[in-house]
Amino acid sequence: MNLKQLSALLGLSQTTISRALNGYPEVNEETRQRVLKAAQETGYRPNRAARRLATGKAGSLGLVMPMSEGQSADIHFAEFQSGLADECLRHEFHFVIMPAHPHEEEQAIRELVNSGSVDAYYLAYMRARDPRLKMAKSLALPFIVHGRSLGVAEDYPYLDVDNEGAFRQAARYLIDLGHTRFALINGMADLDFAARRRMGLEQALAGRGLSLRGDFVSSTLMTDANGYRHMAQLLQHPEPPTAVLCASTVLALGAVRAIREAGLQLGTDISLIAHDDDLMLLKPEHFSTPLTTTSSSLREAGRRVAERLISAVTDPEADLPRRELWTADLTVRASTGPAPD
Amino acid sequence: MNLKQLSALLGLSQTTISRALNGYPEVNEETRQRVLKAAQETGYRPNRAARRLATGKAGSLGLVMPMSEGQSADIHFAEFQSGLADECLRHEFHFVIMPAHPHEEEQAIRELVNSGSVDAYYLAYMRARDPRLKMAKSLALPFIVHGRSLGVAEDYPYLDVDNEGAFRQAARYLIDLGHTRFALINGMADLDFAARRRMGLEQALAGRGLSLRGDFVSSTLMTDANGYRHMAQLLQHPEPPTAVLCASTVLALGAVRAIREAGLQLGTDISLIAHDDDLMLLKPEHFSTPLTTTSSSLREAGRRVAERLISAVTDPEADLPRRELWTADLTVRASTGPAPD
Repeated sequence: MNLKQLSALLGLSQTTISRALNGYPEVNEETRQRVLKAAQETGYRPNRAARRLATGKAGSLGLVMPMSEGQSADIHFAEFQSGLADECLRHEFHFVIMPAHPHEEEQAIRELVNSGSVDAYYLAYMRARDPRLKMAKSLALPFIVHGRSLGVAEDYPYLDVDNEGAFRQAARYLIDLGHTRFALINGMADLDFAARRRMGLEQALAGRGLSLRGDFVSSTLMTDANGYRHMAQLLQHPEPPTAVLCASTVLALGAVRAIREAGLQLGTDISLIAHDDDLMLLKPEHFSTPLTTTSSSLREAGRRVAERLISAVTDPEADLPRRELWTADLTVRASTGPAPD
Repeated sequence: MNLKQLSALLGLSQTTISRALNGYPEVNEETRQRVLKAAQETGYRPNRAARRLATGKAGSLGLVMPMSEGQSADIHFAEFQSGLADECLRHEFHFVIMPAHPHEEEQAIRELVNSGSVDAYYLAYMRARDPRLKMAKSLALPFIVHGRSLGVAEDYPYLDVDNEGAFRQAARYLIDLGHTRFALINGMADLDFAARRRMGLEQALAGRGLSLRGDFVSSTLMTDANGYRHMAQLLQHPEPPTAVLCASTVLALGAVRAIREAGLQLGTDISLIAHDDDLMLLKPEHFSTPLTTTSSSLREAGRRVAERLISAVTDPEADLPRRELWTADLTVRASTGPAPD
């Protein structure tokens, strides 16, 4: 049974049937009941096209995929996308991906919005005082920010992890174990989450009269190769750090390899805490020395962002929180221990 | 300088300017030269919207993202997508992703094509006698298959890796090392690539008078956890295999963990060859015992699929090969060695 057949059966237009099934108030209750009953009896399930016809919506979310020269798949992006796709599937939405160079993101969003092919979109990979926020507020479509933007006081809808709190807590844990020489292998310095993680670490150190050496901080694309390279460099210092925070388990993968090659024992000679986005492939408990982590699921974040966007499209009156800040949990495993003598 | 301003400057319509810049034959040569000169002098670069106006194309590729209950990010899908995105970016294309349950893929493709939001699309995760091929040939848009479909005469455009040849070669290499008890940790049995890899292994064994035990074959979602589980099961057999082929380095990640936990030495007690899709995170040379692999880049495949689709959209007369079969290279590392006595 398709919409056309159901329409012939009931003597109602396809639009009326779709509106009835989608709960639009233009259809009177008696008609709605008739349609619901017939749909149930015939096993009719409206498809996307029929729903679009009824609602005037594309049934689609938009996003810009940031591209860097020579970069391979970003597993963080993929993990977020898998949650987004899950939630889209539940609501029969699809999504449009516009790949763009970092300096062309604003243009890409404008084109996405103007194309009419999406009903809502999200912004990610935020930077300090990000100009996309002002732009997004001037455009007509609902949006949500994954992350936040330091230096922007205005109100905007977002979902973020408490990156500052997570790294503050991780650092304090290590300070309590006697560590004083800290290093940070961070994401790109211009990204908001990386800036906040650094702030969290610096706050914890300052609170105990310690400070972070500038040359013990690296800001980099979060790849295995970069984790290796930066850790190897740190270990060449005459007085290397005894405590390292990594902004991703992907960076930690390389960092741990460098530590092993240097003949050092993780958790004894050097302690490491990584932020764990709950990536399927890199479970911290499966590392040869299980990793102490701060963790928050990127997949769940993708799911929640899609849920909020779809709700903004299908039920604009819904009373959703505009600002959500998720806490990252500290889980202690074998990669951390007392500072060596 | 935008299109509107350039239009006012030259006294030409926006459509004429776009057509001139895109090389459409409707615009006479004198006008084209005038437009090109003005565009160069003013630094005007046409955006996607202007190009769409001129060409009547959406500038978009479509794909269906297969979803399985409870599944996390599929790193294989992500790696392919990163190549696709790279190539889309070069041509200012974007792409539309329709998540779908496996049994609803046909419907999803139909909706994608009918939506008018894509100019071309690709089919992936092919099965034997895949009904999507017949459907795709009946629809109006250009398409390409990533993979092939056993049981369907190959008169459709595709890009595939020689999966059969790769696993035949890998198995022969191990047979030459004296191995006779083989196991296969494969992708889902209904997928074409998995069926062909099994065929390659069975051919190599049959060629030397050997055979593959049915209970030494597992067909599974290619995750780390499944690799671990199936390898652990194999090792409980009273006469376990001495040679294992894994359909992905992701499966190998778990399999290697099970081998290590069983107190066995990879490359001595047991040999393992994995298919390597050139995943950024799982470099076979970075495994604690570097992995012998058959390899072919999924990212390059994504790039090439996008290149062929975009060419089919922008230059339908282009003479591209319809069928491409890529060879996977066997690279010997430390995870393989002579069969134990």
